[in-house]
Amino acid sequence: MVSIEDIKQAATRISGRVHRTPVLTCAAIDRLAGASLFFKCENFQKVGAFKMRGATNAVLSLNNDEAARGVATHSSGNHAQALALAARMRGIPAFIVMPSSAPAVKRAAVEGYGAEIITCEPTLQAREETLNAVVERTGAVFVHPYDNEAIIAGQGTAAVELLEEVPDLDVVMTPVGGGGLLSGTALAVKALAAKARVIAAEPTGADDAARSLAAGHIIPSVDPDTVADGLLTSLGERNFPIIKENVSAIWTVGDPEIIAAMRLIWERMKIVIEPSAAVCPAAVLARPHEVSGLRIGIILSGGNVDLDRLPWLDHLEE
Amino acid sequence: MVSIEDIKQAATRISGRVHRTPVLTCAAIDRLAGASLFFKCENFQKVGAFKMRGATNAVLSLNNDEAARGVATHSSGNHAQALALAARMRGIPAFIVMPSSAPAVKRAAVEGYGAEIITCEPTLQAREETLNAVVERTGAVFVHPYDNEAIIAGQGTAAVELLEEVPDLDVVMTPVGGGGLLSGTALAVKALAAKARVIAAEPTGADDAARSLAAGHIIPSVDPDTVADGLLTSLGERNFPIIKENVSAIWTVGDPEIIAAMRLIWERMKIVIEPSAAVCPAAVLARPHEVSGLRIGIILSGGNVDLDRLPWLDHLEE
Repeated sequence: MVSIEDIKQAATRISGRVHRTPVLTCAAIDRLAGASLFFKCENFQKVGAFKMRGATNAVLSLNNDEAARGVATHSSGNHAQALALAARMRGIPAFIVMPSSAPAVKRAAVEGYGAEIITCEPTLQAREETLNAVVERTGAVFVHPYDNEAIIAGQGTAAVELLEEVPDLDVVMTPVGGGGLLSGTALAVKALAAKARVIAAEPTGADDAARSLAAGHIIPSVDPDTVADGLLTSLGERNFPIIKENVSAIWTVGDPEIIAAMRLIWERMKIVIEPSAAVCPAAVLARPHEVSGLRIGIILSGGNVDLDRLPWLDHLEE
Repeated sequence: MVSIEDIKQAATRISGRVHRTPVLTCAAIDRLAGASLFFKCENFQKVGAFKMRGATNAVLSLNNDEAARGVATHSSGNHAQALALAARMRGIPAFIVMPSSAPAVKRAAVEGYGAEIITCEPTLQAREETLNAVVERTGAVFVHPYDNEAIIAGQGTAAVELLEEVPDLDVVMTPVGGGGLLSGTALAVKALAAKARVIAAEPTGADDAARSLAAGHIIPSVDPDTVADGLLTSLGERNFPIIKENVSAIWTVGDPEIIAAMRLIWERMKIVIEPSAAVCPAAVLARPHEVSGLRIGIILSGGNVDLDRLPWLDHLEE
């Protein structure tokens, strides 16, 4: 079980290896929301996402024997790049299993950090078999993208920094996909700001976490459909109990509102965030009565966007 | 003649009324440039551009009698919004002459700050006649967008802040249109960091400042053609002598390089900058031999972009 001590140790361990990202505010968006919003900008993090925190903590937590064999994971997203860069920073090998359907630009980014890519068919079974074969062949340590204690502790460090800068928050929000960021954040907030509620936000088209919380057990994500492509996965076994115990609510919001919030933040704050990072502000803007007058910390999870395909311009290509 | 004392007084006068913007760096872009770049982020400034500094200084420099009559200007760009907001912050009227061709979104922004818009035909003559009539009718003080000493002093405060954070720069760069930002920056740098060179950057399709510097007199901008729509105007009478005396070089760069640099900064730094702000980084990236190993401060002038019309996507609409 991950404790606040694990998160504090993670913060010390990764300090200087990852960016301490700024907390930004925007008077115009506060007026629209009727609340005071404090944005923890993990879009400015290394590799452009909070994933660098967990990956760095996982890599630095290995003993020398483990580290010498390297790390392995399956991911075509931000975790793949984060683990590859964290491994390179420690000078150890990284093996990344990616589906043959992954975009060339994502493969190139991972290769750019010096990782070895192992391609598999784009099925869950092929992914797991390929990963197992890689681990067997190399002896590398498998670092799951979210269902992993070192990852959870690492992701929790963003909330630690946020609360150091803005201690008196009423609510702390993160988006939820597999639950790595949410579970780490929930543990940090409960320990460091017991009066604050932790609330997650999730796309309506991928609302398995909201349904899981309501049901009291994990309901897998089946055929999710949302622009927030970082939030497609099911909750992890290690993440769900933490979320169940410490998260007050999961707010869902539709893709049109997510896209509008993303565009609003680009336009007013002049920062680039990815659709998954816009889910929390979208959920807040959709709930004026619930959030009125509150001080809300929001972790903007990342900023990796295909600048040639902006969601509010997709009609141009049809 | 504007002095460093005027700029220092402007810094004191506008402190707390405008944002002290951050200075950001990016390891990936430094590697591409072969130089150390320090970006002063005026895209994060109020109204999204450095223009807020000069406008605020001009408005706050008025005595009470002048202020009571209000301020007037002609602009359809960032200066219009900046003067409107600065006037509202002092609680005085602002009269903005805008051509009938100005986009509705720009009119709405100025009106949103409580200014009165006076529409004129889109010709230089109509603009000046309309402005003169407004000044005669209202007694308002005309605040030129750049050919004005209070404006020059105000724009120079961005460089003062940059040099406070990064004193040991080899070069300080700004884009050049009318020359307000460049002349204020040049005066500040010469006084505060005498060893640093001041270099401007300008689009090839609007290179009247480079030609003026070469000729030794102002050559008007005729039919400029560039994506950097903040840099279309001719140099001002008060700006040119300052530039001639204090600016080492004006580097020109083409629109394709400007668009590529803009996209690179969005992608790597996760910040939104407008085309005019991308001219300096584009000029640096195009000159690897000249900039190799240098420490270069770059004022990113603004971040006001039509997010529905990104220059690297224009082919989609054709």
